[in-house]
Amino acid sequence: MPEPLFKRLALLGIGLIGSSVARIARERGDLAAEVVANARTQATLDRVMELGIADRVELDPAKAVEGADCVMLCAPVGAYAALAETIAPHLAPGCILTDVGSTKQSVIRDVGPLVPDAVHFVPAHPLAGTEYSGPDAGFTTLFQGRWCLLTPPPGTDADSVEKIAELWRRCGSMTETMEPGHHDRVLAIVSHLPHLLAFTICGTADDLEGESRQQVLQFAASGFRDFTRIAASDPVMWRDVFLNNREALLEMLARFMEDAQAMARAVRWGDPDYIEDRIRRGRVIRRSLIELKQA
Amino acid sequence: MPEPLFKRLALLGIGLIGSSVARIARERGDLAAEVVANARTQATLDRVMELGIADRVELDPAKAVEGADCVMLCAPVGAYAALAETIAPHLAPGCILTDVGSTKQSVIRDVGPLVPDAVHFVPAHPLAGTEYSGPDAGFTTLFQGRWCLLTPPPGTDADSVEKIAELWRRCGSMTETMEPGHHDRVLAIVSHLPHLLAFTICGTADDLEGESRQQVLQFAASGFRDFTRIAASDPVMWRDVFLNNREALLEMLARFMEDAQAMARAVRWGDPDYIEDRIRRGRVIRRSLIELKQA
Repeated sequence: MPEPLFKRLALLGIGLIGSSVARIARERGDLAAEVVANARTQATLDRVMELGIADRVELDPAKAVEGADCVMLCAPVGAYAALAETIAPHLAPGCILTDVGSTKQSVIRDVGPLVPDAVHFVPAHPLAGTEYSGPDAGFTTLFQGRWCLLTPPPGTDADSVEKIAELWRRCGSMTETMEPGHHDRVLAIVSHLPHLLAFTICGTADDLEGESRQQVLQFAASGFRDFTRIAASDPVMWRDVFLNNREALLEMLARFMEDAQAMARAVRWGDPDYIEDRIRRGRVIRRSLIELKQA
Repeated sequence: MPEPLFKRLALLGIGLIGSSVARIARERGDLAAEVVANARTQATLDRVMELGIADRVELDPAKAVEGADCVMLCAPVGAYAALAETIAPHLAPGCILTDVGSTKQSVIRDVGPLVPDAVHFVPAHPLAGTEYSGPDAGFTTLFQGRWCLLTPPPGTDADSVEKIAELWRRCGSMTETMEPGHHDRVLAIVSHLPHLLAFTICGTADDLEGESRQQVLQFAASGFRDFTRIAASDPVMWRDVFLNNREALLEMLARFMEDAQAMARAVRWGDPDYIEDRIRRGRVIRRSLIELKQA
C-alpha cells in the first residue's frame, strides 16, 4: 500500500460527499492515517461513530482542524464563510485547505481572504452525487470514473494542487484544472440549470388542482419521473448553489427561457420545421454523449 | 391459451409501439390470429419480415386494413388525418379502429368524422416508450405494469372499448378510461412539457460557443445527462405531439415559465427562503412517487 497522503484529514461536513470520502479513506488506508469528522449536530456525529467511518468526531470545527494537514470543507457552500472564519486561526502551518463545493468563484471570494499565509488553499469540485444526503448516503464508489475539477487561484503551491489531485485519483476520479469563472459557467449549464428546471417543474405540478395533481403522480412514468429524481436532491445545498452561482445561472436560464419561448411561439403558430429542427439538435447532443461513453 | 381477441390485427405504423404490439402478438398468440404490418417505406416492411414479427406486410394502408377486425394507428399523430382518409372506405363493417397516439382530442377531431358508421372508434394511449424508434426498437415487455388510457367518445360501443382494454391488459398494461380533454391536460404536464424542456435545454447547450459546448459533453453526468435521454426521442412523433396538444401544452408551459421566472427573481435578489421552499415542494412530489412505487 502506498504511504497515506495525509497524516490527519479533517472533514467539515459529513453528508453524501464527506461520508463517501471517509468511507474511501477507511477502505483504502492511503488517503489519510487519521480521519476526523465534524458536523453541525451531535446526532450526526453519533451516527458517524455508529457507522464507523471516522476515527474521531468533533462538534467544534476549530478543534476538528487542529493538527490536520488536510482540511476539506464538505458543507453547503453558503456555510463556508462562517466556517472559514471559525477555523482560520486554528489551521496548522503547511496545511492544505480544500473543499468540494459546486460553485468555485464564490468559494474563492468567501474563503480566500481568510486563509492564513502558511496554509495552501486548493478549491475543488468532485462532479458526483445522488439525490440522497446525510452520512448514511455515502458509498465508496461514488467518485469512480467521475471528474473532479480543481480551480486553484493563481500562485497556489503546485505540490499542494498535486496532492489534492492525487487524493481524488485515489477516490477513483479523473482530474482537471480549470479557471474558476469558466468552471461556474460550465456547471451552470450542465448541472445548476437542469436542477433548477427539475425543481421548478415539480413545483408547477404540485400547484395543480386536486385530480390533475393526483394523476401527475399516477402517470409520472411518461417523462416527468426523470425530472423528479434530480429534484429530490438536498434543498439547502442547492439553495446555496443557486445563490452562489447567480450570474452564470441567470445567464444560462435567460438563454434557456428565450429558447423555450421560441419553441412556445412555434407551437402556437404551428411551425413544424422549427420544432423538428430544435428536437433534432437535442438528439445530436445525446448522440455525442453516447460516442463519448458519457450517456 | 384464451381465444385470440381478433382474427386480423392491422398495425398502421410499425415503430417502437407498433412493433412491440406485433412482438407480443407473436409471443402470446392470443391478441390476434393474424398480424398485418403497414409502414411508409418498403425498407421498413422488409425489415419487419426479416425480424419475423408480422404475418404479412402491406405498403398500401388501404390493403393493409382489408378484412381486419382491428386496425391500430401507430404512426405519428400528425399523419392520422391522411391515413384515416385513405383507409376509411376499406374498413370492414364491425371493425374496431383504435390508435396509440399521445394526444387524444386531436385524434378525435382528425379521425372521428371519417369513421364509417359500422366501425367502432376507440382512441387509446399506452403510456410507455423509450428514446428509441423504429421496428428494431420494440420489445415484448414495453407495456408491462404501465398504464393505457382509453378515451372513447360518448356513445362508443362498450364491447369494443372492453376488447381494446383487454388487448392492453394482455400486453401487460393497467387500463383506465378518461375524458379526452382531461387526458391531454394531464399528459401535457407529465410528458409533453418535460420533453419540451429536455429538447430545449439540449438546444441551449448546443448553441454554446466552442470550448463550453465541448465541456457540456465532457461533464454531462452532473444532471444534464438525465435530460438528454428523453431528448433523444423521435423528432417527428414529438413535433406532432406538440402541435396537436397546443392549448394544454402552452398552458402548462406558461405556468412553468412563470414559476421559473419567480425562481430567477429569487436568485437575482437573494431570497433563500423562497428558493428553499420551492425545492422542498419538488421533493414532496418525489416522495409521493416513491410511496406510490412509481419512482
